[in-house]
Amino acid sequence: MKVLKVIKIGGKIVESEHELATFVKRFADIEGPKILIHGGGVIATRIGMKLGIEAKLKEGRRITDRKSLDVMTMVYGGLINKQLVAKLQAAGCNAVGLSGADLNIIKARKRAPHPVDYGWVGDIEEVNDVVLEELLKKGITPVLAPLTHDGKGHLLNTNADAIASFVAGAMSARWSSRLVLCFNQPGVMNKGKVISELNFLLYRHLRETGIVTDGMIPKLDLGFQAIRSGVQSVRITAFHSVHEESKGTVLIK
Amino acid sequence: MKVLKVIKIGGKIVESEHELATFVKRFADIEGPKILIHGGGVIATRIGMKLGIEAKLKEGRRITDRKSLDVMTMVYGGLINKQLVAKLQAAGCNAVGLSGADLNIIKARKRAPHPVDYGWVGDIEEVNDVVLEELLKKGITPVLAPLTHDGKGHLLNTNADAIASFVAGAMSARWSSRLVLCFNQPGVMNKGKVISELNFLLYRHLRETGIVTDGMIPKLDLGFQAIRSGVQSVRITAFHSVHEESKGTVLIK
Repeated sequence: MKVLKVIKIGGKIVESEHELATFVKRFADIEGPKILIHGGGVIATRIGMKLGIEAKLKEGRRITDRKSLDVMTMVYGGLINKQLVAKLQAAGCNAVGLSGADLNIIKARKRAPHPVDYGWVGDIEEVNDVVLEELLKKGITPVLAPLTHDGKGHLLNTNADAIASFVAGAMSARWSSRLVLCFNQPGVMNKGKVISELNFLLYRHLRETGIVTDGMIPKLDLGFQAIRSGVQSVRITAFHSVHEESKGTVLIK
Repeated sequence: MKVLKVIKIGGKIVESEHELATFVKRFADIEGPKILIHGGGVIATRIGMKLGIEAKLKEGRRITDRKSLDVMTMVYGGLINKQLVAKLQAAGCNAVGLSGADLNIIKARKRAPHPVDYGWVGDIEEVNDVVLEELLKKGITPVLAPLTHDGKGHLLNTNADAIASFVAGAMSARWSSRLVLCFNQPGVMNKGKVISELNFLLYRHLRETGIVTDGMIPKLDLGFQAIRSGVQSVRITAFHSVHEESKGTVLIK
């Protein structure tokens, strides 16, 4: 089976010209078919605040009301996505920026309003692997924003790690897909050292002992879900090591 | 030759749920290959003001500084483009929202800084008619935001009427392309009546006598430019008449 790389980055990278340039060069130089997924929550929150739209929280989780969704649509679908695409094109990578609505790439269901109404948040129902494959076969690199749609005319806010995990999973039927989750640390850490391999048993132990906490938990849950759905490998690593397959933490069965 | 419809709308349409729904239904029902181009300057100005980014003018024309370009990237590439795409998908139209950077669809040159430096404004150099044709042949409807790129990693602000005129012109080598410029009036008006046909001589006369003024002048200039570049027909009409070929003002040679 042909190898496909599915790479996820945070959206904040567009704010540092130097980091962005480094990442774009390394990403563009990765050979073979690839898909990029980006986040952007931090920037959306900041721009929302400037616009007087405060992040509403319920039980510690963010509520996506109508106005917040508009800010996300601007920041994810526009600001971050289009800047990445322009930089990738300049680096010789034929990128196309897509939300889940474009070409009906990712359909989602608005999360049920009970017990908590999170607003315009979408849980992924279907990834259009046929269209993604057509693009990849033409040498095109899809750049996916963390927005899906419900097929009834509404955009939905969907976690970028979840999109990466589902896309890698959906593509694994016909591709040997390798998922790379990039963030601002060299991998999953324990006492200042990168854990090079992590299986579910070790992950559960590290979580129970408080070594793995907070934002790393949903990221690892999605990583292990990708493994279970047939993804060949999952690696958690730093932005600047996106091209170095020996770096970071590798999740194994 | 196969007929292609190139339709341009202002971006403000996304602000009225009713108008948007009407337009989307009528646009989706138009048969055959079609391309949609949207503007959005009014919304970008308003959101820019809320963000404390004031529109800078030089000799009455807007300057696109770095921050204004970011606002345009958010509003054109994200807010307006993705909402239109989600609505079109719901109406059964397989839309894909693109800036000029996506798939290298429209390359432009940053306008020379002399005599006036307009900032990040792009004058169109090349429309990628081959890629547009590939999309159309698959039954896909491109939805173009008024953003181009310079191929060096920079997005550029480009007038939506100009994009519509150039795209229709570029496609006219292999398609019988019909350009429709939609706006908030039923056509080019004289004493409350729609002028049904307009050639360049009549246009010049109406301009000299002050009947045609302001924003209509660049629109008509671009319309006549499209005619000269081989576009089969140019029609200026109201949003709600996008599907009625007998309505509006038709430009003729």
